[in-house]
Amino acid sequence: MKIEAAKPEDAYVQTNEIAWQDFPADFHSGGVKWKLLHVSPEFGIWTVMFFCPNGSILYPHIHHGPAEGWIFEGILELRGGPEKGGALCIKDGFLYEATGAETKMLADTSFVLQMVGPITWLLKDGRQINQTWFDAQQLWNQQTQ
Amino acid sequence: MKIEAAKPEDAYVQTNEIAWQDFPADFHSGGVKWKLLHVSPEFGIWTVMFFCPNGSILYPHIHHGPAEGWIFEGILELRGGPEKGGALCIKDGFLYEATGAETKMLADTSFVLQMVGPITWLLKDGRQINQTWFDAQQLWNQQTQ
Amino acid sequence: MKIEAAKPEDAYVQTNEIAWQDFPADFHSGGVKWKLLHVSPEFGIWTVMFFCPNGSILYPHIHHGPAEGWIFEGILELRGGPEKGGALCIKDGFLYEATGAETKMLADTSFVLQMVGPITWLLKDGRQINQTWFDAQQLWNQQTQ
Amino acid sequence: MKIEAAKPEDAYVQTNEIAWQDFPADFHSGGVKWKLLHVSPEFGIWTVMFFCPNGSILYPHIHHGPAEGWIFEGILELRGGPEKGGALCIKDGFLYEATGAETKMLADTSFVLQMVGPITWLLKDGRQINQTWFDAQQLWNQQTQ
Repeated sequence: MKIEAAKPEDAYVQTNEIAWQDFPADFHSGGVKWKLLHVSPEFGIWTVMFFCPNGSILYPHIHHGPAEGWIFEGILELRGGPEKGGALCIKDGFLYEATGAETKMLADTSFVLQMVGPITWLLKDGRQINQTWFDAQQLWNQQTQ
Repeated sequence: MKIEAAKPEDAYVQTNEIAWQDFPADFHSGGVKWKLLHVSPEFGIWTVMFFCPNGSILYPHIHHGPAEGWIFEGILELRGGPEKGGALCIKDGFLYEATGAETKMLADTSFVLQMVGPITWLLKDGRQINQTWFDAQQLWNQQTQ
Repeated sequence: MKIEAAKPEDAYVQTNEIAWQDFPADFHSGGVKWKLLHVSPEFGIWTVMFFCPNGSILYPHIHHGPAEGWIFEGILELRGGPEKGGALCIKDGFLYEATGAETKMLADTSFVLQMVGPITWLLKDGRQINQTWFDAQQLWNQQTQ
Repeated sequence: MKIEAAKPEDAYVQTNEIAWQDFPADFHSGGVKWKLLHVSPEFGIWTVMFFCPNGSILYPHIHHGPAEGWIFEGILELRGGPEKGGALCIKDGFLYEATGAETKMLADTSFVLQMVGPITWLLKDGRQINQTWFDAQQLWNQQTQ
């Protein structure tokens, strides 16, 4: 019985040559844009760039695995900021969210985030919606085809 | 800036010395029992033993990461069985579900399954419920305290 | 820019229909046999069944990620056994090795182990040899072709 | 039997406030500097910033899991560059190395890289040395204490 498996491939994305797309309105307010950079189906890992205008809010959500990333510019308030045990994430900032974070933008903010597993968005009307690497891939490929 | 991190610990569970507990009624029919063996919070990995009586059904569900396990006895029909491209999993069977599987028991069946990330259960009333390593841990510790 | 990725596939292995093969002599004494059940290239995960005759020794080794498995029969002494803070793993035993374990067999022992990342074997002559999912896959496909 | 597990914690690193340290001379030529940003022991994941002067070389090495990162400035030649099926990675470039890459710097280059599992460095004298998250953590804490 031969054991075979598809191997993942290298990828390189010149991100400044890709146009921003609208992030789904269900998940935020204030005009957030995104670029999907990579997906790894085996563990459901996906990497996204975000541009969040000043005052925009990513609605409360749960990461079901770690989320790790980098702040290019702006101010991302994590878990209510330093007064509530969170952090203000700015330029040259490296971020590791263990799980369950809420994020609010205090300036025009851009960052990249690698997420493991789905995000569960907690909508204003009480519904909970999962967004997976696969949903992200489908949406991105529709928006950019 | 010192870099520190909690290290996971070894674990050993003598599973035959642990009593079966009821698996949540929302997620199945037919009297399924479970034992929680391990959780790994970093990636949301959890390992469960199941005992599924003949005719019991684990309701349709989505695994958001791989599910890997071992069949001790019985018959677990995966994705509709061989006629539909799935499999009949029996004693001495090793199972790797990439994602999105449905499973039906054709005999009293026991197996162990390591799951990466949450399960989304698709309930009969249309609701979708996530079950995570953390939900599993909470339920198990309530049932066994 | 379309984002695409190879998806891993389901797998089912009827392990009792597969013949045991010799495990490399460099890594043990006493006639250990193995069956390779699965590989997941993305994270370098591989799942192996072992049969270890009484008195056989898997030489000291380092797991670079978790190793999780199940003891079917026999006695596997982990980290020197209970007196040294380890465990005696027997029938119906679930095992999670966080990292860096040494294992000795006190009876004919069979178990299945899912390993994340390579094993570094510490050979008697002082050399250190990595064994990866890919090495395992190559060896198995040679032995069984 | 209560199931407990250490949960990983959030982390935030203001990287421009941390001094560069020397990367081990065994693994490169040309004065490479590094900053360790994060370690995740469960899967052996570690995240590093590198500054590689023009002409510096990271010696041939094998990643045993994915390596994912971001180029801040400079030119990182991956797998011999585009002519050999690799890539030239520059400012605003996102990089995913599936495994086994070689990298050469064609300018002063800085980037961040998240690595899953150990790196095996192939030294000039024929030796192979593993560098793990734990080795990185130990070295960093010595250099910065």
